[in-house]
Amino acid sequence: MQTKKGQSIEDASMKMIEDEIGSHNYNEKEWPIVRRIIHSTADFDFADKNRLIFQKDAIESGMNALKNGCSIVVDVNGVIGGLNKQNPKDFGNEIVCNISKPEIMQQAKDEGKTRSQVSMRVAKNDIDGGIVAIGNAPTALMEVIEMVNEGIVKPALIIGIPVGFICAPESKEELSKLQGTPFITNLGRKGGSSSASAIINAIFKLIRAESSN
Amino acid sequence: MQTKKGQSIEDASMKMIEDEIGSHNYNEKEWPIVRRIIHSTADFDFADKNRLIFQKDAIESGMNALKNGCSIVVDVNGVIGGLNKQNPKDFGNEIVCNISKPEIMQQAKDEGKTRSQVSMRVAKNDIDGGIVAIGNAPTALMEVIEMVNEGIVKPALIIGIPVGFICAPESKEELSKLQGTPFITNLGRKGGSSSASAIINAIFKLIRAESSN
Repeated sequence: MQTKKGQSIEDASMKMIEDEIGSHNYNEKEWPIVRRIIHSTADFDFADKNRLIFQKDAIESGMNALKNGCSIVVDVNGVIGGLNKQNPKDFGNEIVCNISKPEIMQQAKDEGKTRSQVSMRVAKNDIDGGIVAIGNAPTALMEVIEMVNEGIVKPALIIGIPVGFICAPESKEELSKLQGTPFITNLGRKGGSSSASAIINAIFKLIRAESSN
Repeated sequence: MQTKKGQSIEDASMKMIEDEIGSHNYNEKEWPIVRRIIHSTADFDFADKNRLIFQKDAIESGMNALKNGCSIVVDVNGVIGGLNKQNPKDFGNEIVCNISKPEIMQQAKDEGKTRSQVSMRVAKNDIDGGIVAIGNAPTALMEVIEMVNEGIVKPALIIGIPVGFICAPESKEELSKLQGTPFITNLGRKGGSSSASAIINAIFKLIRAESSN
């Protein structure tokens, strides 16, 4: 849902990114995702120093799950803020974000965990078969990895791109080692909720491009 | 509203930023704001290549307005997502974001404008005397500058930190030239809704620190 003027600004921005990036090693489905993150952050490090890592089935699995109306579980409200809302509306995806619920706060206090950890654990039915997107909280990502390793959930795609100094790089390294689960992550400290939303928006664009062919 | 564990991760991150940044030229109120942006983005360019510019009255004026319960007008929902919600709740600040309203879309189409432009124009009563924070849309920022120049609004603070390739750097340059209006902006392409929220969260922290002295 964009005006003509809004769309023409976006097109010109994408062209500028193409011109400046020159050559890259991403394939034809990966690159529109990386390009959209750069568009959201004006940060070319995402193509290079903090480059994206795509597990081989990640994009296909994410596209299939989204177009079949899977849930989208996010760690923070910022990820929701950056989403193009028309997509989940059209494809029937429920967006789940538990972080601000009072009972989560209480449970986190009781168990000596972060709210992010607890908010993932309680969303297990939505994570199973769904997309989980983490832009902020490495403890949320670690919890999801643990749930996968425990055999409790089988997400269609884990988007793990938390930003930060403590635990964030380590949590992404853990994700990159996960076997048999589709994931998209990146190296180092950079990331964030805008990057997480950009990835989801870009996957929906791939779905629409495919269905218009 | 943070658990003990969440707070200790934040403290350790801030310490890491302090250690890595070494010396800087920001004053004692500016630096906690810049540091919080770096915390939200893991991007040290905000202290340097894309450094922040504070109009001389900006922080004081923003603090006064917020603690007196002014409105906070934002360009996109992503800015709201990144806000610590306890602050506006405690200080009675209304958060205004018009971008997704159907009537804004219609008006934008009719007038050949972006939705962002229209969403600022219709929020004029809240912008006047309030805080306006723009993390995404340079056309929104240009519209606010125009409204100031037309004498329609006198914001207590303009936070203008849109990210982007087209118009964003230019809109921030325009803002930096504005006379007699408090603003916080930065140079170049980088910015975003996380940075805009980080600035607001940091100003609330300054208010709380001041009142606890």
